[in-house]
Amino acid sequence: MPELAEPRRGRPGYDQAAVLDVAVAAFNEYGYDATSVAVLADRLGISKSAIYHHFASKEALLEMALDRALTSLEGVLAEADAAPGEQAAALSAADRLDRVLRGAVHVLVEDLPSVTLLLRVRGNTDVERRALARRRTFDREVTALLTEAREEGSLRSDIDARVVERLLFGMINSIVEWYRPGGPEDADRLADDVIAVALDGLRTSAPRVSPPPAP
Amino acid sequence: MPELAEPRRGRPGYDQAAVLDVAVAAFNEYGYDATSVAVLADRLGISKSAIYHHFASKEALLEMALDRALTSLEGVLAEADAAPGEQAAALSAADRLDRVLRGAVHVLVEDLPSVTLLLRVRGNTDVERRALARRRTFDREVTALLTEAREEGSLRSDIDARVVERLLFGMINSIVEWYRPGGPEDADRLADDVIAVALDGLRTSAPRVSPPPAP
Repeated sequence: MPELAEPRRGRPGYDQAAVLDVAVAAFNEYGYDATSVAVLADRLGISKSAIYHHFASKEALLEMALDRALTSLEGVLAEADAAPGEQAAALSAADRLDRVLRGAVHVLVEDLPSVTLLLRVRGNTDVERRALARRRTFDREVTALLTEAREEGSLRSDIDARVVERLLFGMINSIVEWYRPGGPEDADRLADDVIAVALDGLRTSAPRVSPPPAP
Repeated sequence: MPELAEPRRGRPGYDQAAVLDVAVAAFNEYGYDATSVAVLADRLGISKSAIYHHFASKEALLEMALDRALTSLEGVLAEADAAPGEQAAALSAADRLDRVLRGAVHVLVEDLPSVTLLLRVRGNTDVERRALARRRTFDREVTALLTEAREEGSLRSDIDARVVERLLFGMINSIVEWYRPGGPEDADRLADDVIAVALDGLRTSAPRVSPPPAP
């Protein structure tokens, strides 16, 4: 959990969330190690002590950003199990997987900067290692869901579930490399596309071999 | 093209290719900017001038590594059009696409370090910008192939071909993040898995909705 869970109000226009947004953008642009609190203060046009008013340290900024992305992703799994007013038992594993993949695309599109930061974490500090551990737990739970969908017969069983999980999230995570908000694809459309590729496949059922020419 | 196309023989055990391999590994580990020729000389246990015997500059090492990865990828497209002894016209666009995706997985597995380096290039120098331009040409040619496969009716036409291209190569390129040679999946198996996810889809044709319970 982040060190400062309670939002603190600071100067007008710079509440905790605004400082965090600027920090995440800078971490993504220059790298976390290369971004000093002085650089952040410069970008915000405030003093370093004004930043320390909101966050105990640069690492607390990183921790809160990673927590935001991870909490959203974990929420996707929890909601797939049982959306409000639904019974979990009513949903097939394939339907829950569909929801998880769509939900992950939405999280990525709606919090592109924090997810981008999360995907670049390499485990150099305790904060980063804890974030990686939460990501691994998420990956394991998705893998378990894939296994369940195979066992119920709704997904093909000739591929290792761990490899499938990596390929699916490799595809989804790669969206951070090119997606820009406000483009022609919104999150719903992009989620449809991911499902179309991953679950239904690109091939049509049309014959792949042309019929012989008429005599 | 790399500055030094002719292999030069140097000291025993350190020909040009061996120096390049060590350099690529170091660039991937520390980043290109952070890796000096002195660090490379240290790693190889040879002098800086012994490295300059093989390569005019650090940038020439980068250029040759990127050229190696790009030449392999471009070869995949060329071979998909017409393998030796075949007529290009005999192949459907869908079959050529199948070959391109499988071929790209093979290139990645067989030259993991150079492809990893290529995927991290951000366009900071002329050498990097030329490499990115070649990658964009490759992406455009794959997109054209996807469009052709849609037009022949073998791929679904409800997704933008550029988005599909990005999702497919997002999935394939993500393999560099986790694949380690010598694991349980070889290149052929991994290529089968990518095709299974991307072209055929994970869903079986089994009914997704359970039949109503017997009365």
